[in-house]
Amino acid sequence: MLNQNNMIENNKIKVVGISGSLRKDSFNTGLLQAAVALAPAEIELEISEIGQLPLFNQDFEINLPAAVQEFKNKIKAADAVLFVGPEYNYSISGVLKNAIDWGSRPYGDNSFKGKLAAIMGGSTGNIATARMQYHLRQILVALDMHPLNRPEVMVGAIQEKFDIEGNLIDDYTKNKISEMLSALVIWSKRLKI
Amino acid sequence: MLNQNNMIENNKIKVVGISGSLRKDSFNTGLLQAAVALAPAEIELEISEIGQLPLFNQDFEINLPAAVQEFKNKIKAADAVLFVGPEYNYSISGVLKNAIDWGSRPYGDNSFKGKLAAIMGGSTGNIATARMQYHLRQILVALDMHPLNRPEVMVGAIQEKFDIEGNLIDDYTKNKISEMLSALVIWSKRLKI
Amino acid sequence: MLNQNNMIENNKIKVVGISGSLRKDSFNTGLLQAAVALAPAEIELEISEIGQLPLFNQDFEINLPAAVQEFKNKIKAADAVLFVGPEYNYSISGVLKNAIDWGSRPYGDNSFKGKLAAIMGGSTGNIATARMQYHLRQILVALDMHPLNRPEVMVGAIQEKFDIEGNLIDDYTKNKISEMLSALVIWSKRLKI
Amino acid sequence: MLNQNNMIENNKIKVVGISGSLRKDSFNTGLLQAAVALAPAEIELEISEIGQLPLFNQDFEINLPAAVQEFKNKIKAADAVLFVGPEYNYSISGVLKNAIDWGSRPYGDNSFKGKLAAIMGGSTGNIATARMQYHLRQILVALDMHPLNRPEVMVGAIQEKFDIEGNLIDDYTKNKISEMLSALVIWSKRLKI
Repeated sequence: MLNQNNMIENNKIKVVGISGSLRKDSFNTGLLQAAVALAPAEIELEISEIGQLPLFNQDFEINLPAAVQEFKNKIKAADAVLFVGPEYNYSISGVLKNAIDWGSRPYGDNSFKGKLAAIMGGSTGNIATARMQYHLRQILVALDMHPLNRPEVMVGAIQEKFDIEGNLIDDYTKNKISEMLSALVIWSKRLKI
Repeated sequence: MLNQNNMIENNKIKVVGISGSLRKDSFNTGLLQAAVALAPAEIELEISEIGQLPLFNQDFEINLPAAVQEFKNKIKAADAVLFVGPEYNYSISGVLKNAIDWGSRPYGDNSFKGKLAAIMGGSTGNIATARMQYHLRQILVALDMHPLNRPEVMVGAIQEKFDIEGNLIDDYTKNKISEMLSALVIWSKRLKI
Repeated sequence: MLNQNNMIENNKIKVVGISGSLRKDSFNTGLLQAAVALAPAEIELEISEIGQLPLFNQDFEINLPAAVQEFKNKIKAADAVLFVGPEYNYSISGVLKNAIDWGSRPYGDNSFKGKLAAIMGGSTGNIATARMQYHLRQILVALDMHPLNRPEVMVGAIQEKFDIEGNLIDDYTKNKISEMLSALVIWSKRLKI
Repeated sequence: MLNQNNMIENNKIKVVGISGSLRKDSFNTGLLQAAVALAPAEIELEISEIGQLPLFNQDFEINLPAAVQEFKNKIKAADAVLFVGPEYNYSISGVLKNAIDWGSRPYGDNSFKGKLAAIMGGSTGNIATARMQYHLRQILVALDMHPLNRPEVMVGAIQEKFDIEGNLIDDYTKNKISEMLSALVIWSKRLKI
């Protein structure tokens, strides 16, 4: 369900961005940071860390770890989630899947339920996280989320798209990200109610 | 590559079993324990824990955490890996994917490379981890492993297949597991150069 | 794009139903016929045949075969498409994929673009077309369609759900189909801008 | 099962190549024709047409159409199948899936069973048929085939790799195809029991 209260309050679409890579200088985290800078006025994009989450264990559901509860609260307060690469072993990273598994639990308390979703990712090769993105899309069916179909943001040769300080400097990629964020605004208006 | 030295030494196929669930009374871990009990003479099946692994972070690759190195060594010493459920959110658990991500790294040191693989899993519903198993099979292409095609061990209504002490008591499921382990013996002989 | 004219005209959601099986007594076609009977007042569900389509050949795009043009016109006039099984070889049938390939072409004339979608299918086994349905969902991203997330209608042991004259007699399955059609009504209202 | 008789007879690995595109000047068929020219001495690669097959209909299984029987005989006489693109709508073409559906039937007469497999494909974009290839790999599990893991032959910007007469002129792609065929020779020796 879109969080109507938030949207009414400040007329902004609240988006939580999650990067599936914990590497300090991760290019995928770089894409997410670029998205923060490129976000249009209608979008409030906040990055949520996931490296502090423990490995998922159903035995801990009775008494959720504080880090998990905080993560779930952020997701619940949002209207949409922006999932960002990388692709590891032809799928989403274990780190990202672990965060998703926590967010979806305990049974009956799926924090992602009904939220909008957007996906992007980059890799050094040509396939550009395509394999990760379609696995993630199947997972989003389980989560009952509503992902954008277009544009699909798959950044190949990602190491060439950043300067030495980790800033995204590739105009084509920047435009794709802007296009995706604009599509998310339109999608959120269309699904509102 | 099959570990020829081990196979010559004691004529046994060394299999490492990994459960993707950390829940203490996990039915999937129960399936794996049943497989240990059902293993034919040709197979030496040892369970490897993965709950002690940290979340994957490429920055730690320069100096692998001890738990990771130990996990990788176990995989490397094996001829085959038996991957065991569960299915979370229509895919493999983040916990299992995290172990796979560690095992496949650093670049050029993929511990799973060339090993045989078998897959099983169970869930309370009818789909019985099918969605998990096909995602995993795609991941196994990345790992350059050789999985069994048959039998596919997908256990539905898994909560009904165990007694109160966590012992697998369902004959059909036991037979399926035995059939899978026998198929793994044949597959390992066929692929032994 | 939803076909606003049609919706204004008669206030009904126009749905085209396609069965991926050409077998005369196909259980999946039986599910589709049951859906026609179960359709609520808000839905006008018409079955479109696909067995008369030739095999897709891009060389024929310059001068589309009449059967193809007719099929495309039906899809274009609809607000939603109901895709119905079967699962062949762990994926959608070639027959259904062939119809989809025609409907999506020529380039720039994707008849499915922006339509809503719902999926159902049945098989004699437990997996109940799950593998087909997730392959189809990936295809729907390409088509830029908006499928329902819930309910997922996967009918196992389908041969037991019909009487000897081919009528669906299983109440659980009937209720699932009704639930899906109701969800499609709600989904179409939500997406109607 | 590998066709031992054939292999003993002439010491060659019999491979049937199938292109999923019926377009007369198909680049993917061009890749397959290049593979015929590049085949090493150990491989006998013959192209099998699939455009003459009717749409699959289980009602016709009692009396298989002649074109289907002929197709099935070719597959049965082979040791391996080389599946070649294209990617349509993020999956394999309906034309190729239709041929696979026929080849796998009737029940108990799966012509593909136990054969080796190799996959290649090309597209004008960067993803280079990756989505098609992983859907196909799932289908190969159903068929009980043994596909190569490496190399994965995914040709992007395929229109730039051919001369005006339809000859593959790109050395990198040629080398990849040769590498794949050599890997198939090694794979067939390893699996020959």
